[in-house]
Amino acid sequence: MKKGHQVTMKEIAKKLGVSVSTISRALKDSPELHPETKRKIVEMAKEMNYQPNLLAQSLRISRTKTLGVIVPEITSHFFASCISGIQDHANKRGYNVMICQSNESIDQEIANIKTLVASQVDALLISLSRETNHYEHLYELYSREIPFVLFDRVHEEIPVSKVTFNDAGGAYQVTHHLLEMGCRNIVYVSGPEDLYISKKRKEGYLKALDEYGIKENPELIKISDLTEEGNIRVAQEILMMEPKPDGVFCMIDPVAVDVLTYWKSKGVKVPEEFALAGFTNNPTSAVVEPPLTTVSQPGYEMGKLAVSHLLDQLDGLASDDPISIVLDTTLVPRKSSQKTI
Amino acid sequence: MKKGHQVTMKEIAKKLGVSVSTISRALKDSPELHPETKRKIVEMAKEMNYQPNLLAQSLRISRTKTLGVIVPEITSHFFASCISGIQDHANKRGYNVMICQSNESIDQEIANIKTLVASQVDALLISLSRETNHYEHLYELYSREIPFVLFDRVHEEIPVSKVTFNDAGGAYQVTHHLLEMGCRNIVYVSGPEDLYISKKRKEGYLKALDEYGIKENPELIKISDLTEEGNIRVAQEILMMEPKPDGVFCMIDPVAVDVLTYWKSKGVKVPEEFALAGFTNNPTSAVVEPPLTTVSQPGYEMGKLAVSHLLDQLDGLASDDPISIVLDTTLVPRKSSQKTI
Repeated sequence: MKKGHQVTMKEIAKKLGVSVSTISRALKDSPELHPETKRKIVEMAKEMNYQPNLLAQSLRISRTKTLGVIVPEITSHFFASCISGIQDHANKRGYNVMICQSNESIDQEIANIKTLVASQVDALLISLSRETNHYEHLYELYSREIPFVLFDRVHEEIPVSKVTFNDAGGAYQVTHHLLEMGCRNIVYVSGPEDLYISKKRKEGYLKALDEYGIKENPELIKISDLTEEGNIRVAQEILMMEPKPDGVFCMIDPVAVDVLTYWKSKGVKVPEEFALAGFTNNPTSAVVEPPLTTVSQPGYEMGKLAVSHLLDQLDGLASDDPISIVLDTTLVPRKSSQKTI
Repeated sequence: MKKGHQVTMKEIAKKLGVSVSTISRALKDSPELHPETKRKIVEMAKEMNYQPNLLAQSLRISRTKTLGVIVPEITSHFFASCISGIQDHANKRGYNVMICQSNESIDQEIANIKTLVASQVDALLISLSRETNHYEHLYELYSREIPFVLFDRVHEEIPVSKVTFNDAGGAYQVTHHLLEMGCRNIVYVSGPEDLYISKKRKEGYLKALDEYGIKENPELIKISDLTEEGNIRVAQEILMMEPKPDGVFCMIDPVAVDVLTYWKSKGVKVPEEFALAGFTNNPTSAVVEPPLTTVSQPGYEMGKLAVSHLLDQLDGLASDDPISIVLDTTLVPRKSSQKTI
C-alpha cells in the first residue's frame, strides 16, 4: 500500500467479501444490519486505519449548489428532455446544472466525472454510455462519498438510487397492440444484443407473443447496429423474408423511421403490407407519413424524479438508502399500425 | 470607491470615453493604436492604480483544460449540433467541455456564467438567450480577462470573436428559389420582430423580392410568437388572405412544420396551393410529407470553428484581437416548394 494512501470503503468491502453498500451502512450504524456484522466491519475499518473522507464530507457541507449531469448524447431528444426536467427542478431548488456528454464512450465518461468532481459539484446524475462495461469509476465515486443517482442507462449492482423505465412493459404494450391489429408474424428489430434495452424490450415482445400462444421464432429477430445503413439493411432483409411478416416492432423510433423511409422509396405500403411501430415517441415519429405508432417515455418526468430524489437525499429529506424508481410508458397508437386485414 | 476595490479596464474605459477593447489594446502596447492614445490610457491606468487581473492571468497559466459552453436550449437540434462540434474538437485538443443552458432566460445565463467561472473553466463559448438585452455580465467577463467567444446569437459590440451565419443570405436563397418556382405573392412568417434572425431573414427576403421588381407589402409579413398555437393562427390567417398568396417562407422549420400539419388536416395541398419553405434543416423537415424545402445551417461546423479559434487564442496560435467568422448556408430544395404552375 502506498505511503499516505487513504483506505477506502471499497478496500474494506473486498477484504471482508461484502458489498461497499454493507460497509457504508455498517459505518453509519444502520439498524438494517445484524449487530455482529456491524461489529466485524467496524473492527476491520479500525484495523485498516479507515478514515472517513473528510474532504468529501466538508464539500457536502460547503456546497457549491451545482449539480453535474452526464448523458450519452444531448442530440438525442430523449436525453435533452431528461436534462430539461433535471434543470427546471434543480433551478427551482436553487441549484445550477452543468452537463457533460460521454458520446457513448467510457473513456469520455470517466473524463467527465473527473471534470465535474474537480469543479466541486455537490452531486451527480449519470446515464451510462453504451460502451460502459466496467464500473470502477462509479465505485470510486461511491467510496469517495460523492452522492449520485443513475437514470435510464444504469448499472444494477451499484448501491445508489436508480430511475428507469419499464422497458419490458412498453415493448409488451406495443407488441400486444400489433397482435390486436391482427398481426401474427411480427419481426422485432433489436439493437446490439448486449444492450440493456435490447434485452428488456425483447422480453416484453416475447411475453405478448406468448399470451397469444405464439412461440419465439429466432428468424423473426433482426439485429441492427442502429446506424442508417444497418437499419436499411434490415428493411431490405424483411422484404425478402418467407413467409412475409405482417408486423414490425423496431426497438427505437429512428430505426422505424429509416425502415419506413426506405420502404416508401421502394413503393412498399405501410400499414397495408406491414404494420410498423417504434419506441420512444421522438418528435419525428408524429410527423412522418404515415405517423408512427410508438411508446412514449416521459424523459422530462424521469429527469424531474431523479433530481428531486437526489436533492431530497442531499437535503436530508430522504434516506441515503438507495431506492429504485420505475416509470411506466404509454402506448401511442398512430396510423402506421392500423392494418386493415 | 469601495476599500480594496480593484479598478477594471471597464472603469478606465468609462473615464476616458473609449471602448474596453481600446484600453486592452493600449495596455498590451498594440501597434494598432496611436502612440498618443496609448500614452493617455497608460497614464490614466497608473493614476487610477489599475492592477492587471493577476488571478485571471494565473488561471490562464494553471489551466483546468475545461471549457464552458452556454446555449439557450439543448433540446434544439441546431444547438445540440453546435455542442457536438465544440466537444469533438475540444476533446481532440485535450479539453473537456461542460455545458449549461439558459432556457432563454437572462437571469439563468448570468447564473450559468457564475457557475462556470467558479468551476475555473479556461474559457467560454456563449450563445445568448432570446431575453438578453443588456450585456454587463459579458463586459464583466471581458474585463476579468476570461477568454470567450460568442456564436450564433451574438452581441455585435462586445470586442470578442464571433461566429455567425449569413442569415440574410440564406433567406435570400430560399426566397429566390420560391420566385424561380413561379411564386410572386410570397408570405414571410417571422418570429418576434426584435429578434436578430427575424430582422436578418426579412432583409434577405426583401432583397430577393426587390431583384424581381416586387415591392415590400406589409400585409405579406406575418408575425408568430413561435409557439404551436401562434404558428397555427398564422396558418389560418394565410388561408383567409385575399388575394391568395402562392408561396410561404417560414423563418424556422418548426413553424413550417406546424403550418404544414395544420393545412394537411384541413385538406390544403402543398405545394399545389402554396409552395412552402422553412429555414434550419431540422431532421423533421426531411421526413414530413411532402418533405420541406429549407436552408441548411451547419451547426456542427459552427461549433468546430468557434472552439478551434478560441483554443488557438488560448494557445497563442491566433491573435487575441477579435475576429468575425460568417458561415454560409445552403439551400435544400425539396418537394414542398416544387409548385406546378
